[in-house]
Amino acid sequence: MTADYRDFYRGRRVLITGGLGFIGSNLAHTLVDLGADVLIVDSLLQDYGGNLFNVADVENRLRVNIADIRQGTTMHYLVGGREVIFNLAGQVSHLDSMRDPHTDLEINCRSQLTLLEACRQYNPTTKVVFAGTRQVYGRPDRLPVDETHLVRPTDINGINKAAGENYHLVYNNVYGVRACSLRLTNVYGPRQLIRHNRQGFIGWFVRLALEGREIQVYGDGSQVRDFVYVDDAADAFLRAGASDACNGEVFNVGGDEPIAHRDLVRLLIEEAGRGSVRFIPWPDDQRRIDIGSFYSDSSKFSAATGWRPAVNLREGFRRTFAYYRQYFDRYVDDPAHAPQPA
Amino acid sequence: MTADYRDFYRGRRVLITGGLGFIGSNLAHTLVDLGADVLIVDSLLQDYGGNLFNVADVENRLRVNIADIRQGTTMHYLVGGREVIFNLAGQVSHLDSMRDPHTDLEINCRSQLTLLEACRQYNPTTKVVFAGTRQVYGRPDRLPVDETHLVRPTDINGINKAAGENYHLVYNNVYGVRACSLRLTNVYGPRQLIRHNRQGFIGWFVRLALEGREIQVYGDGSQVRDFVYVDDAADAFLRAGASDACNGEVFNVGGDEPIAHRDLVRLLIEEAGRGSVRFIPWPDDQRRIDIGSFYSDSSKFSAATGWRPAVNLREGFRRTFAYYRQYFDRYVDDPAHAPQPA
Repeated sequence: MTADYRDFYRGRRVLITGGLGFIGSNLAHTLVDLGADVLIVDSLLQDYGGNLFNVADVENRLRVNIADIRQGTTMHYLVGGREVIFNLAGQVSHLDSMRDPHTDLEINCRSQLTLLEACRQYNPTTKVVFAGTRQVYGRPDRLPVDETHLVRPTDINGINKAAGENYHLVYNNVYGVRACSLRLTNVYGPRQLIRHNRQGFIGWFVRLALEGREIQVYGDGSQVRDFVYVDDAADAFLRAGASDACNGEVFNVGGDEPIAHRDLVRLLIEEAGRGSVRFIPWPDDQRRIDIGSFYSDSSKFSAATGWRPAVNLREGFRRTFAYYRQYFDRYVDDPAHAPQPA
Repeated sequence: MTADYRDFYRGRRVLITGGLGFIGSNLAHTLVDLGADVLIVDSLLQDYGGNLFNVADVENRLRVNIADIRQGTTMHYLVGGREVIFNLAGQVSHLDSMRDPHTDLEINCRSQLTLLEACRQYNPTTKVVFAGTRQVYGRPDRLPVDETHLVRPTDINGINKAAGENYHLVYNNVYGVRACSLRLTNVYGPRQLIRHNRQGFIGWFVRLALEGREIQVYGDGSQVRDFVYVDDAADAFLRAGASDACNGEVFNVGGDEPIAHRDLVRLLIEEAGRGSVRFIPWPDDQRRIDIGSFYSDSSKFSAATGWRPAVNLREGFRRTFAYYRQYFDRYVDDPAHAPQPA
């Protein structure tokens, strides 16, 4: 399991839902390099993170199929023959989930059921790795948070992601459609959406620092979070997809350097060589779904697969800034996706 | 809170979703007696437990509106002006949720969001009491199960009920639409569906005993469950609806006499004076979503509201048999609802 999980993907027919998005496209790059037969399904919904440029450099080495996972009959066809399904399609904005809860339900909850039904009927021997989220835990009772912590989401997105995750476990346990869930904490790195600030703060902060703008931190910035560099997140998916020891289980996948917002921003500004910080009061809509400090214990996943984050924060930010300095225009220059006021 | 929670309902405008069903109709009877202004909304979906006969004796003292909670615009209108909403509409069959997961999702998950959105927009000062279920816990790690136990449902119904419950908590916490959830264990008593065996075993066993038929118990019957007589369940809803101490909380509502299936059936046969028992192997579809022994700790709810079950099992079965002996035809005589093979 330590090295050969990468060999496992040579010639392997895999499907990545949400494969034009942040984590999906980075995973696609790794899979292409490992010799996998990669099919990407992505809806390219406006504001959702899908970006054709994310795979432009490997477009001849994989196949992109534009489709919406809400369309069951389409998914019935597309899951066929795929030996591993990396299921990353989702609505990831907590704020959007509160403003339009039914759309969040359609994508994060109902479509997951549709995908699993498609697998059960048309590809029951596949393996599905679901992109879960630490958001399902809500405001933690204790730190670090491990998988024995109660699931008690504070927003609609967290509720629907929890349901989507649970469907995977039930289809594993009842129907033998092998599946597991990785509860990701804050992932950052190249190919992340930085057009607007509604998909978590880290991509937005990266952009502001790059542009030499002011970064606004809510409260006193004492809140702690953990972060995972996207290559480490992609590696977690690879390991989970190749390991039957993961079936039917949920795993935290988090960073090992918990850091307060204020220190994080200081590090960002330092690595960017630009930007400034200002502390502002919590906006009401953010405060009401906020979860306080959070960082996770990923030792269950490490024990099962040997995974460990390899890229520390400073190095990760260096790589991230280097990427966006080179391709900045491809991530912000779309008048239809003008940034929201911070 | 000990006595005046009943006075609270005099002249109170209440809505009961699923009010023609088992618990809803019993609750309606009590509310009518307490002088409440009762509006029932029920879809009368075939096989779901709604039965106009359940309120035939009080039909001039309440209002029945046939509607489906999946119809959002209708619910927008119907929640208006209702001071307390007892939200009991649901699909309750675990087996049906596996055979038709999308319908279960529509009713137990999406419709709950629709109802809460209706409250937020058209009646934000209402109070909602949701009929949750112990099914959300799945197979327990320890007994008795209290509310600190992980939510880890074993079937689609449990997943969707958990999501529906969580929406209530988020609307309470974020929007101030006061709401709480009662996680009911096995409820039994008059007005329960006994036409088929897909909504839990207890109603079905009651019927078989009444008819002098053979009751089939899976395995050796050593599995333990707790039971709540329906009047005690209705009393729990009354207390929760009148108590702001319950807002934003989930509560177990279970019985205080955990009993093994084999002993339960023995008691049923004894009280019915008829029937027999046979132990048979677990059917596959049941075994795969089974949760083993389960009984709950309701002390959190008792502490918050003073609730305690008042009717013991023997007395509850006596009342149940007395009711069905009198009205048996009204609960089985529908050719469209012929019983399934056991």
